[in-house]
Amino acid sequence: MNYTLNNIPERTKKPRQFGFTMAMDKGLSLREVEDFIEVSGDYVDIVKFGWATSYVTPNLKDKIKLYKDAGIPVYFGGTLFEAFIVRNQFDDYRKVLDKYDLSYAEVSDGSIELDHDKKCDYISKLSEQVTVLSEVGSKDEEKIIPPYQWISLMQAELDAGAWKVIGEAREGGNVGLFRSSGEVRSGLVQEILTKIPFEKIIWEAPQKAQQVWFIKLLGCNVNMGNIAPNEVIPLETIRLGLRGDTFSHFLKMTKDN
Amino acid sequence: MNYTLNNIPERTKKPRQFGFTMAMDKGLSLREVEDFIEVSGDYVDIVKFGWATSYVTPNLKDKIKLYKDAGIPVYFGGTLFEAFIVRNQFDDYRKVLDKYDLSYAEVSDGSIELDHDKKCDYISKLSEQVTVLSEVGSKDEEKIIPPYQWISLMQAELDAGAWKVIGEAREGGNVGLFRSSGEVRSGLVQEILTKIPFEKIIWEAPQKAQQVWFIKLLGCNVNMGNIAPNEVIPLETIRLGLRGDTFSHFLKMTKDN
Amino acid sequence: MNYTLNNIPERTKKPRQFGFTMAMDKGLSLREVEDFIEVSGDYVDIVKFGWATSYVTPNLKDKIKLYKDAGIPVYFGGTLFEAFIVRNQFDDYRKVLDKYDLSYAEVSDGSIELDHDKKCDYISKLSEQVTVLSEVGSKDEEKIIPPYQWISLMQAELDAGAWKVIGEAREGGNVGLFRSSGEVRSGLVQEILTKIPFEKIIWEAPQKAQQVWFIKLLGCNVNMGNIAPNEVIPLETIRLGLRGDTFSHFLKMTKDN
Repeated sequence: MNYTLNNIPERTKKPRQFGFTMAMDKGLSLREVEDFIEVSGDYVDIVKFGWATSYVTPNLKDKIKLYKDAGIPVYFGGTLFEAFIVRNQFDDYRKVLDKYDLSYAEVSDGSIELDHDKKCDYISKLSEQVTVLSEVGSKDEEKIIPPYQWISLMQAELDAGAWKVIGEAREGGNVGLFRSSGEVRSGLVQEILTKIPFEKIIWEAPQKAQQVWFIKLLGCNVNMGNIAPNEVIPLETIRLGLRGDTFSHFLKMTKDN
Repeated sequence: MNYTLNNIPERTKKPRQFGFTMAMDKGLSLREVEDFIEVSGDYVDIVKFGWATSYVTPNLKDKIKLYKDAGIPVYFGGTLFEAFIVRNQFDDYRKVLDKYDLSYAEVSDGSIELDHDKKCDYISKLSEQVTVLSEVGSKDEEKIIPPYQWISLMQAELDAGAWKVIGEAREGGNVGLFRSSGEVRSGLVQEILTKIPFEKIIWEAPQKAQQVWFIKLLGCNVNMGNIAPNEVIPLETIRLGLRGDTFSHFLKMTKDN
Repeated sequence: MNYTLNNIPERTKKPRQFGFTMAMDKGLSLREVEDFIEVSGDYVDIVKFGWATSYVTPNLKDKIKLYKDAGIPVYFGGTLFEAFIVRNQFDDYRKVLDKYDLSYAEVSDGSIELDHDKKCDYISKLSEQVTVLSEVGSKDEEKIIPPYQWISLMQAELDAGAWKVIGEAREGGNVGLFRSSGEVRSGLVQEILTKIPFEKIIWEAPQKAQQVWFIKLLGCNVNMGNIAPNEVIPLETIRLGLRGDTFSHFLKMTKDN
């Protein structure tokens, strides 16, 4: 850090198993990636190329290299996996992962109907090739999954070989974990945490109020996902109790100890 | 594209007469323009320097050159035209177009009262000098134009020499084609399309939900305008059915065929 | 300016005592700072490193140098001052200001309870070392300060040595001067202005509707704060009546004269 402040919450350090930040790149240029790494390289643990943007961005190979050289793994969003599955192109998908020499992949079913055994089967197969993140939760506002089912889905996917499970929120933060207003479905989150270890879950929380909510509930080292590149520094200050939103929260904790 | 997915909607290619994307530059630096072109050059057909930002941005000449060298024409927002007209400086406006060697211009009346014959007269005069885009719709929330009038205004402006007509929405997407909530005035759009060929219209749709709405109604090759530079790649995935929002829509179309 | 338009409101020029724009840098890279200066250098008078982002951004020294070389002073957000005060590290804070050779600092109490005499004492002490901006208003939505108290707080802080006082709004623009909806507390602003000279106040107004409101009320040379870097050019056009929002407002004024 640039100077010394006492009683700052202790953050985990790279390589992090928890307390990590997954950022979303939805079409950065090479220079923008360099800029992002210059500013936020120490705070970003993994980068997702949002949904299927990797299909259309022309600088893909070079961009992956920039992130890799900075020690930041990348993976393609789950919607891309689904786009291959729904077209019966699973083998092609595996080849794409090889072509770009990726070591992470996401398995999700946010936009397609996928039998859960079949989904776990894909997780299992892919985990022989790469480290798998699997995502639970629909992109469809109408599909409400009850808490006990979130738990059994998450557990089954971890058992099938997923490294971590992701709680779905979309870029806009308005489905899955969240009501259409963007409000957190808090009872859901708390019930999930009675069964699934918190370090195994990445919470997608693109909006500041959502980040604040999770950090107040689970502490500075909660795993956060879908963070916009220019929001990684602001998020880091929220984690440390150095932004108005969590300033008093962490002070109170210090006094209570 | 970076890899092969079957059954992807077929996009038009540059130079596009329809299916094109107009992006809005409201003050990019030269390097940001280079970055934008690196990432989105194939998907951007024309760039608007938003409203009268060209009056204050210091890098104007060099910026125009960067876009031109990349084969992307630029034009100044309609509000600038209006700023000249309301000051009785039409001749000065024509000289500005010459000074910057522009080959496109926008004629609009979103912020001023302008007799429609007079507006068509301006379109007609300017179209001797440049390719004219004309814009229909007020920036004033209170001014509701009924559908039949949108149609007759658009037709008259095309007859006067406009290359394409633009459906007004402002940067925030909350007037003209849209209710103040941002919701599309769908009856209006559908009635317009019974009379005006869809390739002649550019729909301003800065918000994602609006883009999705138009793409679902008119297909992947609808003309979209007022797109933020960093939203061109996301828009392209929406056009291709590769983002959650249109994923099922295009799959269903494939099955129906 | 790039071309001539008649009857444009007259803006103050650098170095500005009023009519100035304070922008917020919440984690720009060095190149992004260069880009920002290229585009907006003439329109930005001072830059705030938002809240305590300076604690975590790795490029701090070099970034400060870039701004300084362009003649743009920088300062650290008030939340950083508060983070030092609440930890009893005021002397450390003074050393940090020296270490980075800063000539401006902000004193605020948006997140902490601070006796007002004590706050004025800090203003007084710091103003021996640097030029002080002091901020009035809480980040807490629940804390409503009545207008007469805003006035006496502001006056006392100016008397204690503050160069200018800032009306608090947070980055999101939803507290202090604003209702939780983002709407301006207009009676409050007007009452403040009966007693405090308008050139002494910087209004934090991150949202466009708020900027428009202040510019319509106080003219093109009102001091605006918390402006996002890529909104400085748009703000400048609003000040000049060259964006739809203030287009008619300034024309009407011209006619009335």
